[in-house]
Amino acid sequence: MSFSKNQTKVINKLRQKKYRMKEGLFVAEGIKVVKELLASSFELDTLFVTEAASENFTSYKVEIVNEVDLKKLSSLKSPNGVLALFKIPVEKALNSSGLVLVLDEVNDPGNLGTIIRLCDWFGIQQLVCSVNTVDCYNEKVVQSTMGSLSRVAINYVDLLPFLEKCASPMYIADMVGENVYEAKLPKEAVLIMGNEANGISDAVRDYVTNSLSIPRFGVIQATESLNVATATSILLSEFRRRV
Amino acid sequence: MSFSKNQTKVINKLRQKKYRMKEGLFVAEGIKVVKELLASSFELDTLFVTEAASENFTSYKVEIVNEVDLKKLSSLKSPNGVLALFKIPVEKALNSSGLVLVLDEVNDPGNLGTIIRLCDWFGIQQLVCSVNTVDCYNEKVVQSTMGSLSRVAINYVDLLPFLEKCASPMYIADMVGENVYEAKLPKEAVLIMGNEANGISDAVRDYVTNSLSIPRFGVIQATESLNVATATSILLSEFRRRV
Repeated sequence: MSFSKNQTKVINKLRQKKYRMKEGLFVAEGIKVVKELLASSFELDTLFVTEAASENFTSYKVEIVNEVDLKKLSSLKSPNGVLALFKIPVEKALNSSGLVLVLDEVNDPGNLGTIIRLCDWFGIQQLVCSVNTVDCYNEKVVQSTMGSLSRVAINYVDLLPFLEKCASPMYIADMVGENVYEAKLPKEAVLIMGNEANGISDAVRDYVTNSLSIPRFGVIQATESLNVATATSILLSEFRRRV
Repeated sequence: MSFSKNQTKVINKLRQKKYRMKEGLFVAEGIKVVKELLASSFELDTLFVTEAASENFTSYKVEIVNEVDLKKLSSLKSPNGVLALFKIPVEKALNSSGLVLVLDEVNDPGNLGTIIRLCDWFGIQQLVCSVNTVDCYNEKVVQSTMGSLSRVAINYVDLLPFLEKCASPMYIADMVGENVYEAKLPKEAVLIMGNEANGISDAVRDYVTNSLSIPRFGVIQATESLNVATATSILLSEFRRRV
């Protein structure tokens, strides 16, 4: 048993965002991640498993594939027996109450995956991404979210029109902002994190007046900046520790 | 001009820790990272640059190589013109005063790189790694530290004998520890972070009595744990914000 020619073609194409959009499908791999997605509101399209891994998925209709074929199609170094196609859900209506996290062109899939996991941990129910932020159904993002993808609402929007409609105070993360340890932070707010190399875009920077920074304690003061995912973790922690 | 047969062999071998130890060399790539290391106390062994990138290194003795050959040897997807061999320095005497971060079998090179950058940011001058923690001269670690590698003292030791000699209070990061937001934290302390999958080892857990946890705010409470690098960022931030 093996993948059909057409299945192979589709799965390979799903590496690219435009085909994911066209087919309305994304790929997830690994027993842990696939199980979490199966238990969520995501709708399964096809579940490919090896004979050896099939005992983990007895309550699902599966297509048995052999390990060599799975390895060829997998994007993991050591595929562990399952590759699933899930349907990309329709974006839900955006909810801008509570604490909302906004990403202004975050490019790295690993960073986005880590940030989605952080949203889940800190109970951030709405993540808003600029349209030029990496796609959350990118396979590397899916793998690194470890299932959190199903528990965080993610919308891709033009940031300025969205921000113009927000009623909560807005904050950008910046190198020269107010010391976050000393800042008074409201319960309802919009926190905006910028691009890995360039930070916040000029348009957003012009629109948002509050900015927050994480103090640097190094003696030499040479570290250029924190990674966007670690900076996000510290800032979300600061908002939550005050509630 | 190209790499000699012997250079090619050495550079490829340096992917493995045992050859790095034997040769006393590690590989760094990319203009930014190599420049930071050149400006640091690391001692250069050989600097390979392409003709196009050579203008960045006019004050150094370089070996010009062609782009195709560099690409073959590079571990980067898009090598940007420079590959350098640096000498692995002798480990300095361990300094256990101040705030010391200890890693108990952190395996992922990206996590270690991020943690080294965090140490640099938060002014942690001593990072202590268990002998089974990933090697800090692993090429992926070197790339992800973005130069911070030169500013943080890193020692690999047997953790228990080290901890037995520490005078400062010790804390493990754990899912069921004291809420870090409410904990009184001393200025001088040893903070111990565990393995990505298994957390703190039993031997260390038996020895250290204080534990700290980061509260979870999600409604569903399903996120299993924070990534070790993001958890480290929040805990270091908590220690520093009280100073």
